[in-house]
Amino acid sequence: MSNAKTTKQNEDQVQNIVAVTCNKFAPLAEWTRLFEAAGANVRVVDIDDASIEVEDVAYALCFRPQPGRLAQFPNLQLIISLGAGVDHLTADPSLPDTVPIARMSTDQTRDQMADYVAWACLSLLRDVPRMMQAQAEHQWDHFSIGRTAHDCRVGILGLGAMGMSAATCLEKIGFQVKGWASRARPESAIACLWGEEGLQQLAAQSDILVCMLPSSPALSGIVDQSLFALMPRGAGIVNVARGEHVVIPDLLAALETGQLGGAVLDVTPQEPLPAGDPLWDHPRVIVTPHLASVVSMSAAVGHAHTLIGAVERRETPTHLFDRVKGY
Amino acid sequence: MSNAKTTKQNEDQVQNIVAVTCNKFAPLAEWTRLFEAAGANVRVVDIDDASIEVEDVAYALCFRPQPGRLAQFPNLQLIISLGAGVDHLTADPSLPDTVPIARMSTDQTRDQMADYVAWACLSLLRDVPRMMQAQAEHQWDHFSIGRTAHDCRVGILGLGAMGMSAATCLEKIGFQVKGWASRARPESAIACLWGEEGLQQLAAQSDILVCMLPSSPALSGIVDQSLFALMPRGAGIVNVARGEHVVIPDLLAALETGQLGGAVLDVTPQEPLPAGDPLWDHPRVIVTPHLASVVSMSAAVGHAHTLIGAVERRETPTHLFDRVKGY
Repeated sequence: MSNAKTTKQNEDQVQNIVAVTCNKFAPLAEWTRLFEAAGANVRVVDIDDASIEVEDVAYALCFRPQPGRLAQFPNLQLIISLGAGVDHLTADPSLPDTVPIARMSTDQTRDQMADYVAWACLSLLRDVPRMMQAQAEHQWDHFSIGRTAHDCRVGILGLGAMGMSAATCLEKIGFQVKGWASRARPESAIACLWGEEGLQQLAAQSDILVCMLPSSPALSGIVDQSLFALMPRGAGIVNVARGEHVVIPDLLAALETGQLGGAVLDVTPQEPLPAGDPLWDHPRVIVTPHLASVVSMSAAVGHAHTLIGAVERRETPTHLFDRVKGY
Repeated sequence: MSNAKTTKQNEDQVQNIVAVTCNKFAPLAEWTRLFEAAGANVRVVDIDDASIEVEDVAYALCFRPQPGRLAQFPNLQLIISLGAGVDHLTADPSLPDTVPIARMSTDQTRDQMADYVAWACLSLLRDVPRMMQAQAEHQWDHFSIGRTAHDCRVGILGLGAMGMSAATCLEKIGFQVKGWASRARPESAIACLWGEEGLQQLAAQSDILVCMLPSSPALSGIVDQSLFALMPRGAGIVNVARGEHVVIPDLLAALETGQLGGAVLDVTPQEPLPAGDPLWDHPRVIVTPHLASVVSMSAAVGHAHTLIGAVERRETPTHLFDRVKGY
């Protein structure tokens, strides 16, 4: 191997730039430190830094980049989403359609989601909204719900990595769990219904429905009055997917009549939820600010390092977003 | 067998009266229906009915009976508590000290307790008090807690039937669980520390301490400043046992300094908690009105029927309270 070639290789390696989304919680210095600690041979830059040489950007690790920004990187090889969803990327009409997109998926994000969904289902099982209201009113409102997790059927809409993680955790607690996917999943370890008919069957059999679907125009508004009407009276809804999956006016109407007993919403149609939105004060609704599963910087870098390594070895990275299927 | 003897036996059987605690949630007619449905050959009466013939009362199924009332039944063979604890019975100085007392323990009460403790630990893991406060203030307070149940160590004080049920459920979710008992428990399926030194060790190793101890003067005030000081900074406390186990002024002081990060209290020193108590509005405290585990009438009757059957067969009933050990 000639010295000249070695030098060229080193130059190539040094030129691998990863452009990352930085903010006060995720400063550039910390991203740089974490990539170095992971042993990644990359240069880390702030994706919004106007002075970077756009030709040298090979990777982007980002959340809600400025529209048009990714299109400015002509040699981009992989876009890595900092969220499980990629709608914050595909919303950009100028997104380069030939660059592969990888979704964020780590043990940590799956475990966090399972913890949150377990908490949300237990909260609905035990009517925690009633407890919270009683505490706010200083009322010793003793009541009893005889049923336990073993008596409670949970339907999981969407059996991706997150959905499977939550379903498995709920089963361990004792909940009766079934899933739903748009296509048949004969290999699923969780009983899985599918298609339009399966969705209606699952609604009729679920004391709690948990929406964990991917963001997709075809799935917008899928959790609506027609499903609520099929559910057992007093059933609960959990949404940890995207705000647009659940039709909020239908949800409020079903809560009003008692057809639904409660809801835990980690996502809302508009985020942040406006301060004047009636969901905030609804006595049957728990609202949390899209925090069910938030990747840590170190876990994100670990995932990105693995994906970048695959690209460098000319292998296909895992967790790629399928633009045709929409997830 | 002579007719006379048969008649006497029938009379004996008919005379087996069970005196039950009745209220608007548990009316006499429903108790009677449930004992009949269970096939129990007993007559069911309201324990507070002054017209009942006290000599005929063989069993009492009760919660907080009027002090002195149980002493009025000279032929009482078994007192069955409607709660897991028996302090509501032993507080009566005139309680007949030769009549055995059985505690309430059913699959349902153990599962309910496990569900509640799982919910409480997940609530502390994810800082639900912060979420609840943000909702009350209409604040989209996005934050992330990187740790998952797998990173969180829970110490269970008291490994009775309830404690074991909760510990097992928490382990399935992924929490790292250890227990503590006053005496060594080498046979326990959950790692169990014991004695004063073990208590201090467990506190030092617990991100969340869950009090599930029996009511006992020796254990009053056991969860105090000396334990809080040993715990990791920002740790959480759950109390589902008795209000007197936790020293509330110490708890409030530890929350104030941040040594403790939060508490979920299903029991309080005074119940109902007075409307003016500062615990109600504490931003780091979730208060629920002693509802973690409440037996249903049907499950209580099933348990009572089994215990009464044992007595009728001259066998020793299960779940007897040990007046020496205090649980």
